Amino acid sequence: MAKNLTSREEDYSKWYNELVVKADLAENSAVRGCMVIKPYGYAIWEKMQAELDRMFKETGHQNAYFPLFIPKSFLSKEADHVEGFAKECAVVTHYRLKNDENGGGVVVDPDAKLEEELIVRPTSETIIWDTYRKWVQSYRDLPILVNQWANVVRWEMRTRLFLRTAEFLWQEGHTAHETKEEAVKEAEQMMNVYADFAENFMGVPVIKGTKTDSERFAGALETYCIEALMQDGKALQAGTSHFLGQNFAKAFDVKFATRQGKQEHVWATSWGVSTRLMGALIMTHSDDNGLVLPPKLAPIQVVIVPIYKGQEQLDAISQRVEPFIKEMRAKGISVKFDDRDTQKPGWKFNEYELKGVPLRLAIGMRDMENNTFEVARRDTLTKESVSMDGIVDRLEELLNQMQENIYQKALDYRDAHITEVDTFEEFKTLLETKGGFLSAHWDGTEETEAKIKELTKASIRCIALDAKEENGSCIYSGKPSKRRVLFAKAY
Amino acid sequence: MAKNLTSREEDYSKWYNELVVKADLAENSAVRGCMVIKPYGYAIWEKMQAELDRMFKETGHQNAYFPLFIPKSFLSKEADHVEGFAKECAVVTHYRLKNDENGGGVVVDPDAKLEEELIVRPTSETIIWDTYRKWVQSYRDLPILVNQWANVVRWEMRTRLFLRTAEFLWQEGHTAHETKEEAVKEAEQMMNVYADFAENFMGVPVIKGTKTDSERFAGALETYCIEALMQDGKALQAGTSHFLGQNFAKAFDVKFATRQGKQEHVWATSWGVSTRLMGALIMTHSDDNGLVLPPKLAPIQVVIVPIYKGQEQLDAISQRVEPFIKEMRAKGISVKFDDRDTQKPGWKFNEYELKGVPLRLAIGMRDMENNTFEVARRDTLTKESVSMDGIVDRLEELLNQMQENIYQKALDYRDAHITEVDTFEEFKTLLETKGGFLSAHWDGTEETEAKIKELTKASIRCIALDAKEENGSCIYSGKPSKRRVLFAKAY
Repeated sequence: MAKNLTSREEDYSKWYNELVVKADLAENSAVRGCMVIKPYGYAIWEKMQAELDRMFKETGHQNAYFPLFIPKSFLSKEADHVEGFAKECAVVTHYRLKNDENGGGVVVDPDAKLEEELIVRPTSETIIWDTYRKWVQSYRDLPILVNQWANVVRWEMRTRLFLRTAEFLWQEGHTAHETKEEAVKEAEQMMNVYADFAENFMGVPVIKGTKTDSERFAGALETYCIEALMQDGKALQAGTSHFLGQNFAKAFDVKFATRQGKQEHVWATSWGVSTRLMGALIMTHSDDNGLVLPPKLAPIQVVIVPIYKGQEQLDAISQRVEPFIKEMRAKGISVKFDDRDTQKPGWKFNEYELKGVPLRLAIGMRDMENNTFEVARRDTLTKESVSMDGIVDRLEELLNQMQENIYQKALDYRDAHITEVDTFEEFKTLLETKGGFLSAHWDGTEETEAKIKELTKASIRCIALDAKEENGSCIYSGKPSKRRVLFAKAY
Repeated sequence: MAKNLTSREEDYSKWYNELVVKADLAENSAVRGCMVIKPYGYAIWEKMQAELDRMFKETGHQNAYFPLFIPKSFLSKEADHVEGFAKECAVVTHYRLKNDENGGGVVVDPDAKLEEELIVRPTSETIIWDTYRKWVQSYRDLPILVNQWANVVRWEMRTRLFLRTAEFLWQEGHTAHETKEEAVKEAEQMMNVYADFAENFMGVPVIKGTKTDSERFAGALETYCIEALMQDGKALQAGTSHFLGQNFAKAFDVKFATRQGKQEHVWATSWGVSTRLMGALIMTHSDDNGLVLPPKLAPIQVVIVPIYKGQEQLDAISQRVEPFIKEMRAKGISVKFDDRDTQKPGWKFNEYELKGVPLRLAIGMRDMENNTFEVARRDTLTKESVSMDGIVDRLEELLNQMQENIYQKALDYRDAHITEVDTFEEFKTLLETKGGFLSAHWDGTEETEAKIKELTKASIRCIALDAKEENGSCIYSGKPSKRRVLFAKAY
């Protein structure tokens, strides 16, 4: 398969768009802004889901399912929330079509207008808190630790596969607590779960921090986030966890009898990651030859390509590799033996490179004689001849090394792209030349933040949790500042 | 916990509605016809999903994801399909809300009207076949064996939790094939997968058959189904698998180059089961004390309730049961130790009975002395004292027996409720007195089928695959018939 992939240097954005389609991850559909996630892309998402779901359950959460639709009036109950979501939502107004009397196919039946319009959920705080009111009477009913895997819709004007789509898949956790402290702890815990997942499964290093007032989730008192850095020097918000205070409990009148017998509003969190993580995964590791996948999330970890002439040679190879395939499967390694006779080995090599299969084994007649496989690593694009004796242990070791290696590579890149900046001139120059995170002093006002964004397109990605106290002056206003924050252009 | 459950005999329908809510399975939401699936109900659905997903993958299918929205014009492309779904669909007409100038909260922004209305998918044949056109060029691209787990919306006027809801969760398989034979084989295979799942996991015996013309899926040439029987003598369609012929390929112009180099339309199937299966599961096995769950799908298979006074006794019991809990978990038995001090043992017994936990173990001071547990079986409501020695093996054996027993019980009931009927008088009488499946001759016309339904509310559930050829005359028209079909009142 010829790849014809635009290089990252030539046009990073084009490279990404082409890669997503050519590697069979996703494609645009006939519905504006909505994507089709193809089987290979979905298989990666399923692996992500499985790990995250396990992590959520290990931290005491259960899954549930809430309605797709939200009554219009619910959105308005929390003031910031409606402000944040009303401008980009899909609105259901009717519940029936009918045949056009003028023969123009089907048309909306004007007699089937809903009394109150329904919004396709952009996020589910409102419908969930309306439900929690029924679930909570006393402190004995708390905490509620619930997650839902669902689709949501935000009518984005400019969309890009995985990164920004009108419909996307995600999980949204919604928890209810007795005390503020417990809710804050939960929000922090879930940020840590996300960071753990990003780093140890996706191989994507992230910075943990909190959002500024203007970047905070609509309705939250504090938004914790994990921020990753892509190879073009732009940041990507990979997950958020919100401490919602009592805002939604007040909006939906969710009270509980405390241990002291008083009535109090419940404390809340919500947290989510979405198919946007697919975009982060793709952009962090991949190269001009195609996708590079961390072994822990690769649907196929090892592919074996036989090199043969005629059925007899193929049969001999098949027989020889069979016990190795069994051994790999027994160890939980997912392996594919690609014996298709419709494609040549070179075509297959290209295809698996494009699709980011971590290890590619080739075996021909000479390998059979020498008792070896040719093993190609996707991350380093290196090849070596490996003896069949004990090869499965060696492959397992290689997969672990690769998982570590691609993380380290991404970490080195990321760390080399965090730059302390003390003047606005330097800030602007660096942003255009090197990109990455710019660590700078900021005076803490929304005005300055907005002005810097207007002038440079860089936003404050987060106030890193590990930011040291340090006296300085704002790069834009010169006013005093107590700590640096991280700016970047972002997806 | 006091159950206060209406008995089945008193009011079957009320019993069901109460049970679903009281056992924490689901509840109605603020959105008409849309349910909230609560954590305990969702945990059962997750177990069902996991088994079905495994079975789909073992038969060569992959998951993918297609858009929630369907352009209105797509529905019209297949004539029967639009007829079947246009009358009950949620229609998105706008993509933005705005603040009401008169201060009435948010209103639909008239400037944000969609050029073409979007339908929230009632099923995805149209959007998927529009996509498959891009995926298929040659026979080498076939078969496509894809499944999606998704939510769908059908604007039902009368809804009931799990059985008929405006939004429900389901899986829908959509496959594309080179030949008619291969597609028919696929549709039959998936019916068999569903039957296997229903019987061996849900413990629900089903009859496999095909639908009559009038009961067929909108756009299908043949609909295969599995039909189950509930305890009130009404049938429930538990899954369908459709042979779609070339209808959707023609509507969406999906052609492929054959092995002979000709251009031909692709052959299709689709198949699905939904959260309706939860209704079937609940109604098949449960009793006046609450839910009865097959061990293979029970979120908690064994619950241990300590009977104690004071912390010291509880500590002693906890210590004693710990190794048994570990042993059970190692064997893959899901076990809960309920040491809450906020509820009394009797309350807990009631709660777990209501929730259908298969095995309940009680342990008090006397059991500690006697080296026993009191083991209560949910299906038979029997108790026995069981020695701690080798108890985990015994529990495993019991769980297997229970899985078998509840299936056998349902099978006996079902078999006792298939009655051959030869006159319309007898048909009407039996329908009112005994219910169940009535096996009767039918003249094969839609008119007769409709007339019988109008007069008795019974529909033809299916033409059983194993129906013998047998000369007879239609119970209604007296015209000749070649085989009996199965009538029943149905959910």
